[in-house]
Amino acid sequence: MLLKYLKQLNAYNEKVINYNYCLNNIYWDMETETAFPPKAVEKTSQVIEFLSKEITNLLVSKDTIEMIDYLTENNKSLTPIQKRQVILLNRAYNRASKIPVDLQTKYEGLKIKAQSVWVEAKEKNDYSLFAPYFKELIFYNKKFIKLLEPKVHPYDILLEQGEFGMTVEKLDKFFDVLKKELIPFAKATIEKLESINTDFLFKSIPLERQKAFSNYLARYIGFDLNKGLIKESEHPFCMGIEPNNVRFTTHYYGNNFISSIYSVLHEAGHGIYEQNQDSELEGTMLQGGASMGVHESQSRTFENLFGRNYYFLKGLYPNLQEIFPEIKEVSVEAFYKGVNKPENSLIRIEADELTYSLHIMLRYEIEKMIFEDKIEVDELPKIWNSKMKEYFGLDVPNDSKGILQDVHWAGGMFGYFPSYSLGNAYANQIIEEMKKEIKLDEFLEKGEFGPINYWLREKIHRKGMLLDPDDLIKSICKEELNPYLYINYLKEKFRKIIEMNTDVSN
Amino acid sequence: MLLKYLKQLNAYNEKVINYNYCLNNIYWDMETETAFPPKAVEKTSQVIEFLSKEITNLLVSKDTIEMIDYLTENNKSLTPIQKRQVILLNRAYNRASKIPVDLQTKYEGLKIKAQSVWVEAKEKNDYSLFAPYFKELIFYNKKFIKLLEPKVHPYDILLEQGEFGMTVEKLDKFFDVLKKELIPFAKATIEKLESINTDFLFKSIPLERQKAFSNYLARYIGFDLNKGLIKESEHPFCMGIEPNNVRFTTHYYGNNFISSIYSVLHEAGHGIYEQNQDSELEGTMLQGGASMGVHESQSRTFENLFGRNYYFLKGLYPNLQEIFPEIKEVSVEAFYKGVNKPENSLIRIEADELTYSLHIMLRYEIEKMIFEDKIEVDELPKIWNSKMKEYFGLDVPNDSKGILQDVHWAGGMFGYFPSYSLGNAYANQIIEEMKKEIKLDEFLEKGEFGPINYWLREKIHRKGMLLDPDDLIKSICKEELNPYLYINYLKEKFRKIIEMNTDVSN
Repeated sequence: MLLKYLKQLNAYNEKVINYNYCLNNIYWDMETETAFPPKAVEKTSQVIEFLSKEITNLLVSKDTIEMIDYLTENNKSLTPIQKRQVILLNRAYNRASKIPVDLQTKYEGLKIKAQSVWVEAKEKNDYSLFAPYFKELIFYNKKFIKLLEPKVHPYDILLEQGEFGMTVEKLDKFFDVLKKELIPFAKATIEKLESINTDFLFKSIPLERQKAFSNYLARYIGFDLNKGLIKESEHPFCMGIEPNNVRFTTHYYGNNFISSIYSVLHEAGHGIYEQNQDSELEGTMLQGGASMGVHESQSRTFENLFGRNYYFLKGLYPNLQEIFPEIKEVSVEAFYKGVNKPENSLIRIEADELTYSLHIMLRYEIEKMIFEDKIEVDELPKIWNSKMKEYFGLDVPNDSKGILQDVHWAGGMFGYFPSYSLGNAYANQIIEEMKKEIKLDEFLEKGEFGPINYWLREKIHRKGMLLDPDDLIKSICKEELNPYLYINYLKEKFRKIIEMNTDVSN
Repeated sequence: MLLKYLKQLNAYNEKVINYNYCLNNIYWDMETETAFPPKAVEKTSQVIEFLSKEITNLLVSKDTIEMIDYLTENNKSLTPIQKRQVILLNRAYNRASKIPVDLQTKYEGLKIKAQSVWVEAKEKNDYSLFAPYFKELIFYNKKFIKLLEPKVHPYDILLEQGEFGMTVEKLDKFFDVLKKELIPFAKATIEKLESINTDFLFKSIPLERQKAFSNYLARYIGFDLNKGLIKESEHPFCMGIEPNNVRFTTHYYGNNFISSIYSVLHEAGHGIYEQNQDSELEGTMLQGGASMGVHESQSRTFENLFGRNYYFLKGLYPNLQEIFPEIKEVSVEAFYKGVNKPENSLIRIEADELTYSLHIMLRYEIEKMIFEDKIEVDELPKIWNSKMKEYFGLDVPNDSKGILQDVHWAGGMFGYFPSYSLGNAYANQIIEEMKKEIKLDEFLEKGEFGPINYWLREKIHRKGMLLDPDDLIKSICKEELNPYLYINYLKEKFRKIIEMNTDVSN
């Protein structure tokens, strides 16, 4: 019997993995084919719907339920990898079985419509266009929450999707620390570093040279181009079709060459995670990231903890100057300060390392109010704008640069934003541990990513989805999420930059 | 009962259409992603194999057989579209049920290996590397033929796959005429037109301007970019994922700008066929071409009968000269003669309109000898070279420019080549009919493709796979395949060019 069900598990995995391969391939095609035919969208959506339904139907089928039940009852005979698969299958089944297929299908349709309306609303700077869809999206999500688990805090159910084990209780504590510590520190630091010159970052640089540098940079930090590729799209993203087929995009600007450099570092961070899965996980559905937050910790590590590290830049600088002679006269110190200059800004995706999590905090507070029934959709722009004033001292000129700026809510992604801040915090906790074991700054300066990526692979990447995020972080750091390491890192880093900036001014 | 099975037919179609969408998407990705990761090939092949097997398993399943049987017996209650689907399902089932899955799977693996060996053999110019795989490919095909229908001429079974109803008997007659009429005529014509100047065709022209012209040209002849796109690849090809998602590629050369122009005309010809399917065929598996030969007739029509037509070029010429000022001093007459200059050449894909079918004849004769067991694989280069001498008067310098030049045999495509010549012949028969009803040259000169494409859509494109090629050609031309119209067209066209060339020389 055991053998029969294990065979069935393999067949189940094969089917779902292959369907997911197709889905990813279709998404990649839609997002990156520069001239995707407009009229092709309809049939493509039908194929996506068909494959998604096939996956759900397979999950909730009698055969699969029998298999899950048997393997759950007899889990003592299973290997750790098999056990973990059964746990995740149970979670997926519980979710899928509680939401009627019709409701889910309607919701998927709503999301597609809402996203196109959001595009229009943002373009026309008209929140009232989007508001009715926003209301309906929230309505559906509240319905799902009730169907799934009416007893816990509704926001916990949203968090569970991307960050299993995360709760409002933990997040409140996390953001309370950020609010208390980060807001005053950021304010003071921004003032002190106002004098940093960044003009040289906006020199005109031909795209061809920028493109050539992307491949070099990705390889430099350990992204394997035999197992992946780099392309262009409006908004950079990373997609791990499977560990040998990991793709990411970047976007080039003629007058902002570091934009693509930091996109490459960020997305390649995601990509290296996806590429370095343990081969023992092949053929299972455990390949991928432990959670959205842990995935983001890896992209943030490469983007900020490595990419905005002084020693990393010092090591890379000769090559950077060779490819970009436009910065030949700029010292590495000036460059380092330039790419680290903090600023109050309206737009999350343009925010710097110091202020980024404050943008997330604002969104978290708003989402919580929504799902605690404490606010109406029509009031949201007012709330948004008042919080922007409070945290950044900025007036929001219009809703396109305010509440309409992100696509997430239009895509039904509620409870997703916190993973960005968790990523920042996890990244710092993890790197503190790494520093105890290897001489990080030395390797970064030498551009030796072998030992760095080996460490990350052993501790995180190769484990795929074997552990829940909490357990993974504890296995590395001996403690759970701890915002203080993140805060202390920022304080220490920017204290040094202030010092550096004062020295030079003298 | 009928309703039940018709419902089942719809579900069957939906599944297979969606799987084919995924397969096409994957092929497109592999062929056109310029940096497709080498290590991603393995899993991608597995997904292709998985989907292909799912399609076959569905076709030969008990449920499907029951459905086919019921609908075949009760076909009087069916609409013409439903009837046709049942006929084609029967054909597909007969084929699939006679070849054991294991044998087919091994063969698919062999083809992949053989193609990579062929690449190496061609690069190294070493036929002996490829010969063992060539033998095995032939061995498998002979086995399949015996399993499928041991009673007819073995080559007929090969023809059936791409050109239902075509036989060695018919093809022999066709090529006999070509051999008798075309070889002497081509020889004499090539000599007479040797003086045509083509230097201006090889001027250096920046790729950017060539690329811009592709979109213009495709739209000019009626390819709808809302329902398709154009990209680049090493070897141009066209893929109809569905009528609203038709894609083709071209290849740009800095010193040969008409290469891409004629690729675009050719592939857009395939593409226009795919885009103009009747909406009544939606959701059925009848969307596509009536046969390989009929499909090729459309690409050849746009490439040669339109694209190398004097009036078409005259109409296009002002725009052509504006985008390519490099030919500002070249008269349209000189340009027309240049793109029509015939030559004896070693390579099929570089062959001109006059000599193209002779290259096919040579391959047809060799394929027939193979499947009539009249020749050994090791003797093939010698035979190839002697035929090249006989038909073109050329010495083959090496096998890479001889028997190893085409990928078809390495990909198991035996019996495929004739469709290229059939395409040429069908094209001429069809256009003769069109000329009786519309003033083709006038429309070509004005660049008015509306009436031209309307005629083609009504007579051919919208019918998809509703008719077998023979019946389709008969429905348009009131007769079957007739090589004389093709021969006469070539004689007439090149007689005029000789006249034109003499006038100018005087």
